[in-house]
Amino acid sequence: MHELTDASVGFTFGGRPAIAKLRPGDRLYTQTKDCFGGAVASIDDLPSQVCQFPYLNPVTGPFHIIGAQPGDTLAVHLVSLHPSVPYGWSSTFPHFGALTSTAQTATLQPPLEERVWRYAIDLHAQTVRYSARTSDVKIDLPLEPMLGTVGVAPAAGEVRMSIVPDRYGGNLDTPLLRAGSTLYLGVNEPGAMLSLGDGHARQGDGEVSGVAVEVAMDVVLAVDLIPGVYTPTPRLETDAALMSIGLGRPLEDAFRVAQHDLVEQIAAVTGLDLLDALQLVAQAGETRVGNVVDANYSMVARIAKRYLDGACSYAGVHAGLRSSRPVL
Amino acid sequence: MHELTDASVGFTFGGRPAIAKLRPGDRLYTQTKDCFGGAVASIDDLPSQVCQFPYLNPVTGPFHIIGAQPGDTLAVHLVSLHPSVPYGWSSTFPHFGALTSTAQTATLQPPLEERVWRYAIDLHAQTVRYSARTSDVKIDLPLEPMLGTVGVAPAAGEVRMSIVPDRYGGNLDTPLLRAGSTLYLGVNEPGAMLSLGDGHARQGDGEVSGVAVEVAMDVVLAVDLIPGVYTPTPRLETDAALMSIGLGRPLEDAFRVAQHDLVEQIAAVTGLDLLDALQLVAQAGETRVGNVVDANYSMVARIAKRYLDGACSYAGVHAGLRSSRPVL
Amino acid sequence: MHELTDASVGFTFGGRPAIAKLRPGDRLYTQTKDCFGGAVASIDDLPSQVCQFPYLNPVTGPFHIIGAQPGDTLAVHLVSLHPSVPYGWSSTFPHFGALTSTAQTATLQPPLEERVWRYAIDLHAQTVRYSARTSDVKIDLPLEPMLGTVGVAPAAGEVRMSIVPDRYGGNLDTPLLRAGSTLYLGVNEPGAMLSLGDGHARQGDGEVSGVAVEVAMDVVLAVDLIPGVYTPTPRLETDAALMSIGLGRPLEDAFRVAQHDLVEQIAAVTGLDLLDALQLVAQAGETRVGNVVDANYSMVARIAKRYLDGACSYAGVHAGLRSSRPVL
Amino acid sequence: MHELTDASVGFTFGGRPAIAKLRPGDRLYTQTKDCFGGAVASIDDLPSQVCQFPYLNPVTGPFHIIGAQPGDTLAVHLVSLHPSVPYGWSSTFPHFGALTSTAQTATLQPPLEERVWRYAIDLHAQTVRYSARTSDVKIDLPLEPMLGTVGVAPAAGEVRMSIVPDRYGGNLDTPLLRAGSTLYLGVNEPGAMLSLGDGHARQGDGEVSGVAVEVAMDVVLAVDLIPGVYTPTPRLETDAALMSIGLGRPLEDAFRVAQHDLVEQIAAVTGLDLLDALQLVAQAGETRVGNVVDANYSMVARIAKRYLDGACSYAGVHAGLRSSRPVL
Repeated sequence: MHELTDASVGFTFGGRPAIAKLRPGDRLYTQTKDCFGGAVASIDDLPSQVCQFPYLNPVTGPFHIIGAQPGDTLAVHLVSLHPSVPYGWSSTFPHFGALTSTAQTATLQPPLEERVWRYAIDLHAQTVRYSARTSDVKIDLPLEPMLGTVGVAPAAGEVRMSIVPDRYGGNLDTPLLRAGSTLYLGVNEPGAMLSLGDGHARQGDGEVSGVAVEVAMDVVLAVDLIPGVYTPTPRLETDAALMSIGLGRPLEDAFRVAQHDLVEQIAAVTGLDLLDALQLVAQAGETRVGNVVDANYSMVARIAKRYLDGACSYAGVHAGLRSSRPVL
Repeated sequence: MHELTDASVGFTFGGRPAIAKLRPGDRLYTQTKDCFGGAVASIDDLPSQVCQFPYLNPVTGPFHIIGAQPGDTLAVHLVSLHPSVPYGWSSTFPHFGALTSTAQTATLQPPLEERVWRYAIDLHAQTVRYSARTSDVKIDLPLEPMLGTVGVAPAAGEVRMSIVPDRYGGNLDTPLLRAGSTLYLGVNEPGAMLSLGDGHARQGDGEVSGVAVEVAMDVVLAVDLIPGVYTPTPRLETDAALMSIGLGRPLEDAFRVAQHDLVEQIAAVTGLDLLDALQLVAQAGETRVGNVVDANYSMVARIAKRYLDGACSYAGVHAGLRSSRPVL
Repeated sequence: MHELTDASVGFTFGGRPAIAKLRPGDRLYTQTKDCFGGAVASIDDLPSQVCQFPYLNPVTGPFHIIGAQPGDTLAVHLVSLHPSVPYGWSSTFPHFGALTSTAQTATLQPPLEERVWRYAIDLHAQTVRYSARTSDVKIDLPLEPMLGTVGVAPAAGEVRMSIVPDRYGGNLDTPLLRAGSTLYLGVNEPGAMLSLGDGHARQGDGEVSGVAVEVAMDVVLAVDLIPGVYTPTPRLETDAALMSIGLGRPLEDAFRVAQHDLVEQIAAVTGLDLLDALQLVAQAGETRVGNVVDANYSMVARIAKRYLDGACSYAGVHAGLRSSRPVL
Repeated sequence: MHELTDASVGFTFGGRPAIAKLRPGDRLYTQTKDCFGGAVASIDDLPSQVCQFPYLNPVTGPFHIIGAQPGDTLAVHLVSLHPSVPYGWSSTFPHFGALTSTAQTATLQPPLEERVWRYAIDLHAQTVRYSARTSDVKIDLPLEPMLGTVGVAPAAGEVRMSIVPDRYGGNLDTPLLRAGSTLYLGVNEPGAMLSLGDGHARQGDGEVSGVAVEVAMDVVLAVDLIPGVYTPTPRLETDAALMSIGLGRPLEDAFRVAQHDLVEQIAAVTGLDLLDALQLVAQAGETRVGNVVDANYSMVARIAKRYLDGACSYAGVHAGLRSSRPVL
């Protein structure tokens, strides 16, 4: 288990030295803090008061992957995700979210009320309990742990806040980044410099209020390398599907990037030409909205492997990570 | 059965006299032409050559709903959808679709190649067969019939091409508009003036190439009225979920409209205040992309009824239509 | 002078019979109501209370242009614009404007305060006087009369609210539509069916609050026809410049449409190929923001004629209208 | 004169040590390379072949401003800009620009042809000469030197490619950043860390092709500090006007940020409340499009000082820099 200390977390992708090294094939047992860094501990702890910009969304890492070179692809397989504590927090945050004006979509209107919600997590029942703040309504929702933020050092020497998603990964905020998924990221710096954080006990499509059910997370992951193959935008693979993640603004640009990359993936693994691959995506593709709140929006384009005769983009890397020795 | 003649179809919402009248509670047996009006009959029939603007996307209707008045809501329950013929057509179309420049997203690049695909429909196996044009690849996809286009006369005396989606419905292009669904539309003109068309044997999220598996459709639907309640943006209901459809550009605006209306629906049926309803949507809401190609994009925000203690927005109208006497 | 009666105005483009006929070459003396239809007569008249949707933005017309056929271009030269009264009105309007959430850019925030401003117009000094509502500040701004709304019947049998701008013209809301300008519009219906309204004593770029200095206007215009030449998006010409107007959403799409059409105009009149014309636009083009508030945003791309060796797109139609016999 | 060496230029904002120190009030004589780093030396030098990502858009600096602390504002007054050489270069670049699909607005279309244009600069006549590549057309355009890129180290420890514009400045690409202008930037790191580059002999609004008339530039600038006042988005001031620069996507968000900040500037210097300031901007504001091609788009909102009774936002800093001792 990687013990989590203050030195283990940071607030950027890029610009920080490695806290540990991993070999391709290694499993990592680690923890992530919640996006508030643990500062929200009651419904009276308003994030805008207890948190201090830019110290939001702490990520554990970076981990140096031995042998990773620019131009390679890093595969990160999420073996398991378990909330570290039996409760999670959500909130509104002033001028943040999809249904409020923001610093980018700037209006003269005052912010919505800042409010905090506490979710009880029942690991036995596998539920998170929503409790309304202004009434007695309580609703049990499925516990569906995910990581909001996984990424590597950006290209071109850039350093980005951990709250930003872009081609190097980062704050992707998609519920599809969960146990059983393999995330592929293009390597831009020697060692790749993997960081992760922002666990969510669950999240709706779009993270509409700007904040999911935020929780510290026990994480087990395994890593591998695909040398000499660069992945231009993040991709996901599960036993059942291939996916491409588009990041950008406006939302149709994030959509286009995701679909474009999925068409290219399909063309590459099936031998279809681009128009035939486009036609297949148009009829068989699915799309999941990630977030519509961050510095870049995220969309996930997905195609079931059963339509591809089982083909996959990285020659069995996911299957290899998937079937590796179970955690003792 | 409403017999389909040339006089039965048109190319606009609004601006045309009723072809028949229906009473609330009535079931309608009718047919819709495919979006090409049947003009594409082989893979050599390029739509840009065999179809003539603006005679695209014919809709059957309008049907006058007896008693419907501006300010009411029309409920349209899709009882069944069956392809009228055992094949469907898809295509690319010059400067139309999400992965090409268009008349709106104008660039100086030439259009993608125009190409037609024929899909064999197997009603027994419930599949549609994708056949690549430049290789031997064939893939069976599930038959999932839907209507792309259902709407009423727009507000303010407007008349819109049937290819446009907006607050009156129209070319919504969501796979969720299928048998078992009830669509709610605000009534703007006496009689509501319901029209429908654009059957798809199936469609991927986003209708990425601009064209689904287009097919003439045998349609059975039932209608009802909710007097004195206006629906500002289209809503869908199934046995399992409540949904709001956002139409607009850019895509984040379509997303916002859908989420905003879902928050209002939830607040109204649960008694939650708007922020508590927003919080529930943020964690429990799902979003399906409709189209990212039409004059307005479409997004569907959805919440499962099991999280709402079974509440629904229109006091049992869907259940009433759902449980009405089966078709003889 | 065309006498303005209730029968002379409407609230749509398309869908209404002509109120008068004009011959190519004719001058028309007419009037337009302000966008509130005169209902705002004091700073206590809140538009959301004294106006009734959809009876906003009345347009005078339509005028049938004798001989105009679909596929032609109508040229509308604005000879003179004079406020009919010595005062104008502006306001905020709930959930309308660029710095507020709207029905499209939907948020959960309440609207900004609705407030009305009265502007005194001094025809002698050629000024409009801004008077702050919460302080004594008064500022004289230049009187720069323009028409917000000029258009013809849309294509494909559509009927659109007069508040919408699109390829048929309509609520373009650009300060460049002023005396001395010629507007070119593609003809979609026999007679073209020209309507006009929405006079502004002046307007800033973007019409940021959603409302300009609204005023009834005395209008003199002259019309001409270019047979057999269709104009796909509105164009403007002055003695000094050629312009293309892009309408759309998001704003970059309006920008793209305007630049794309200007590149095509330049290529056509200079013989440059498209890339050479693009290069010229990139270095010599100017862009004016029209509105960022309406159903479609508007952008105007402009190039000075002095860079084109005096070339113009419609073979002297503007010059002919410009130099026609002065008004007696 | 700061002598330009390889060590004097970099390709990021943030992440690099200072190359020199300046005191508030100092004048700096320096040079900037063109955006190609001088690698384009003939019309046969295609940028995609002679330049190497990410070594594009070199900026001179960073300069450490003595005394600058986070939370201050840095004022950068451009005293003079003179092309270092009598010719400039422009080009198309694959999948870059407003009238082509891009990595963000991704389509399946191939790129436009890559082509280079050489502009002769006549310092005596103050012109740059456009020469078409596929015809004999030559056009003299006014020489209007500007800097595309001026910025400081970003907030939150970020490092950004010099080609990106954002709240710290950077690749703003507005023709209004020219001699006589003062740019205000919020200071995020001790010393502010000012860098500059990307001289343009001239540029059209929007930089439509993605590339202006690129030229190495002799630059004279003067700097000053406003302690304890932070500027949230870049602002410009001239003798005649106050301006706010909005950066973002989609373009309406860049527009909103610019207008929002201008409303706040006006309210602060006039004492008007926000709605009265909004009303003034709506009628008296001008907007210039910067670029519609970069990672973030740029828009400049402007109001003439003559409407503000001469008020300015930073208590005479611009005037002080403007009237400082002339260059010997």
